[in-house]
Amino acid sequence: MTYTLPAFPPPADAHLAERLRHRIDRKTKPLGALGRLESLAQRVGLVQGTERPVLHEPQMIVFAGDHGIASRGVSAYPQDVTWQMVENFLAGGAAVSVLARQHGLALTVVDAGVNHTFPPRMGLLDRKVATGTADMLAGPAMTAAQCEQALQAGGDVVRGLPGNAVLLGEMGIGNTSSASLLLALLTGESLDECIGRGTGLDDEGLARKRTLLAQAMDRHQAARSPLPLMAAVGGFEIAMIAGAALQAAAERRLVVVDGFIAGAAVLWASRLAPALLDACIWAHSSAEPGHRLMTRHLGVVPLLDLGLRLGEGSGAALAWPLVVSAVRILNDMASFESAGVSDKGTP
Amino acid sequence: MTYTLPAFPPPADAHLAERLRHRIDRKTKPLGALGRLESLAQRVGLVQGTERPVLHEPQMIVFAGDHGIASRGVSAYPQDVTWQMVENFLAGGAAVSVLARQHGLALTVVDAGVNHTFPPRMGLLDRKVATGTADMLAGPAMTAAQCEQALQAGGDVVRGLPGNAVLLGEMGIGNTSSASLLLALLTGESLDECIGRGTGLDDEGLARKRTLLAQAMDRHQAARSPLPLMAAVGGFEIAMIAGAALQAAAERRLVVVDGFIAGAAVLWASRLAPALLDACIWAHSSAEPGHRLMTRHLGVVPLLDLGLRLGEGSGAALAWPLVVSAVRILNDMASFESAGVSDKGTP
Repeated sequence: MTYTLPAFPPPADAHLAERLRHRIDRKTKPLGALGRLESLAQRVGLVQGTERPVLHEPQMIVFAGDHGIASRGVSAYPQDVTWQMVENFLAGGAAVSVLARQHGLALTVVDAGVNHTFPPRMGLLDRKVATGTADMLAGPAMTAAQCEQALQAGGDVVRGLPGNAVLLGEMGIGNTSSASLLLALLTGESLDECIGRGTGLDDEGLARKRTLLAQAMDRHQAARSPLPLMAAVGGFEIAMIAGAALQAAAERRLVVVDGFIAGAAVLWASRLAPALLDACIWAHSSAEPGHRLMTRHLGVVPLLDLGLRLGEGSGAALAWPLVVSAVRILNDMASFESAGVSDKGTP
Repeated sequence: MTYTLPAFPPPADAHLAERLRHRIDRKTKPLGALGRLESLAQRVGLVQGTERPVLHEPQMIVFAGDHGIASRGVSAYPQDVTWQMVENFLAGGAAVSVLARQHGLALTVVDAGVNHTFPPRMGLLDRKVATGTADMLAGPAMTAAQCEQALQAGGDVVRGLPGNAVLLGEMGIGNTSSASLLLALLTGESLDECIGRGTGLDDEGLARKRTLLAQAMDRHQAARSPLPLMAAVGGFEIAMIAGAALQAAAERRLVVVDGFIAGAAVLWASRLAPALLDACIWAHSSAEPGHRLMTRHLGVVPLLDLGLRLGEGSGAALAWPLVVSAVRILNDMASFESAGVSDKGTP
């Protein structure tokens, strides 16, 4: 299988940003008084190419995959937690399940490559590439073909879902290791600063993770172009998120990026198509330390900063009502003219 | 009229915080991975005095009042904007109207003392103390009797509304001046650092505001105990918010504090009853510079930091879904035991 990058739409007409800005400025509030909600509204308008954006059928998609490196002890939790949490997502008991219900987000869980056989059911898509990646300390985490399959599958998942916004989350014991390596190799940041405690490693565990990831980095140092890099140190769920984000942006869907791992997938994907970043809303600043390096590198400030470090898409779900608010403000607020409110003048 | 401080309930039993913590820690997530949502859930449980808090019929209450000092030119907008915005709130076109609809918040607008006669209608409560405060440069903004009347009226408004959470917002051209003076006089912070551009003063306007407020501060320097202080430099809507917050907390309702002006009211009220602060959730960090001094002084970090500086209760409305999420996580998320997920262990 060969992965084909989806074709991106031409950029929005040059005056749209200005027209959106003007609409926002005529709302009954002091100029700029709604702060970042105003730029958020403008962003959604630009993604959809219209002064009157609407949001419909937002899709929370959680990609799950296992990681060969997990057997080395890079996580505080055993690998079985990946499949157990998939069951928990589907049963409605996980944080992302609760938050998706609260906000009316359709939840789809994708088996990207979990080391478990799931009985088929509603809400679960089987896109399993393999029962987990290979150990990246021994070789590449996936073959080139597997990597392309995962990218393609991510795009296919989005194509098969309705709506004009996707919220991208993940589950995979060991996947902060992949995200840290992707971040370090893509940005040149020091690996040590890209590594954190993940689900909650103690000091000893963190030291072990640092040693192991330094070995992985040495081994895969040469893999600098995007596809070999993802194959070397990525994960099936990470590659699928990248493919999903690219497809969604190409279709002018809004992409709400969850935390450190989804962010690493989007950072990686932006090397294939920088325009992807224009479609993205960064939901929250993760407590995983590498995330701040990532967002600083991209020049973005996520909407929320609540010390979250759960993944699953939980941060994306929490930020979603802010996106809805921004669009409602743009569409439903009165203007000075329509409400008969005096504009700024000599008091 | 004499204002009677409502009686506060005894503090929650000493083990409740621990029991709430334990419930949160057994949820299917790494310890602490939901960050500030976890302490928020605990806070709501403590306010309600239960391990299983529920939120029902949240009330957005917007208090509006005019300010004598507005005639001196401390705002970028004319005084008529106060009543025009009250009409806009009621017509559903203001930011707070749009956001209250989005989140299912019942919206009540209270005429605390607007310089305008409103025809009666649904959603508007007439608690007018006078048609605006007096000019605080010439004397106290209100009499002691007016101040107590406003405090009492704020409490009465809350008593008359259902539900177990109030979100407190305001409208009043000139009211950042009152908030800045309250902040400076209550905390001893430098007045200059407590003053900002409000609705958007230009440099000249800001310089004028600084000069005028320095004069007001000199005049009212002696008014250091809470009631004379509020009477000297406060506002009817600010005193009503204070009375509303105290009453709500005394009834074990949650108090969601909007921005700089509502915050000044709560800061002031906490001098009468420090336990009020235990019931409060600080919604957002305002772009009005004094707000950061205020929250630092109180040792609180608001939930959102989006550069808002609108008031009305808009920031409280935006933070509301996070409060709902915290409670849903506490009540609806599965535990490791119930979901059959392996807890942290040797990987």
